[in-house]
Amino acid sequence: MIWLEDIEVGATERFGHYVVERDEVIAFARRYDPQPFHLSDEAAAETHFGRLSASGWHTASMTMAMIVAHYRDIGFQSLGSPGVDELRWLKPVYPGDTLSCETEVVEARRSASRPEMGLVTSLLTVRNQDGAAVMRFRPTVMIRTRTPG
Amino acid sequence: MIWLEDIEVGATERFGHYVVERDEVIAFARRYDPQPFHLSDEAAAETHFGRLSASGWHTASMTMAMIVAHYRDIGFQSLGSPGVDELRWLKPVYPGDTLSCETEVVEARRSASRPEMGLVTSLLTVRNQDGAAVMRFRPTVMIRTRTPG
Repeated sequence: MIWLEDIEVGATERFGHYVVERDEVIAFARRYDPQPFHLSDEAAAETHFGRLSASGWHTASMTMAMIVAHYRDIGFQSLGSPGVDELRWLKPVYPGDTLSCETEVVEARRSASRPEMGLVTSLLTVRNQDGAAVMRFRPTVMIRTRTPG
Repeated sequence: MIWLEDIEVGATERFGHYVVERDEVIAFARRYDPQPFHLSDEAAAETHFGRLSASGWHTASMTMAMIVAHYRDIGFQSLGSPGVDELRWLKPVYPGDTLSCETEVVEARRSASRPEMGLVTSLLTVRNQDGAAVMRFRPTVMIRTRTPG
């Protein structure tokens, strides 16, 4: 298991493999983001998306699926997250794309109010199969400390 | 239809009504955020969540559903979003909660590179049925301008 004390600022990782399925893009959009460019190629053709594109919140959710699988692989037990900063949807995500993640730890600190807990902030970039960055954000996650003080 | 020129900085709105369903919380978490506190009351009881809580990305997605329904009601045709800032999950969202939104326009400007387009930034707060803020973020959305220059 990984503790706050094991986290190094500047450390980088690559992980994840998520194939974006057309049916899933449409099902997500119908329920949570039914804007025309997330529902049909025809409507998307009239916009800068060009063709059916995933909701940005769907891309964030697919990314979270990759993150949680990676947590499991490396023994990182998150206590939850206070939030994320600078979430940017940089390029459309299309059905058929394969997504993966790159992270760099930018800050790791003990919580002042809860010294048994630490806060780790990373810069996370999601890329498609061509290496193009499609989304980027700065998540902060809570993690246990090995020593309480 | 609403254009950039119709948007006033400081304008506020309240909208939305989303009942958080237990089955939906679990289904979302299974696919996109299978951390224990999003899957069962028993696992959540051992954490600060206390009981089964929605994934933060699920809360963001439910919020987007409220936003898109509101866009339709008021004739706001978004061209998409470059991103959001300062996304904060302030309190757990539980099955049985009813969510609603408050927004305030904080900036509205013409795009320098694409003068036929504007960018509107808001501060959006999601509250539960007790009026408690559960999530807050600053979305920026693209919208057409009435006059191109």
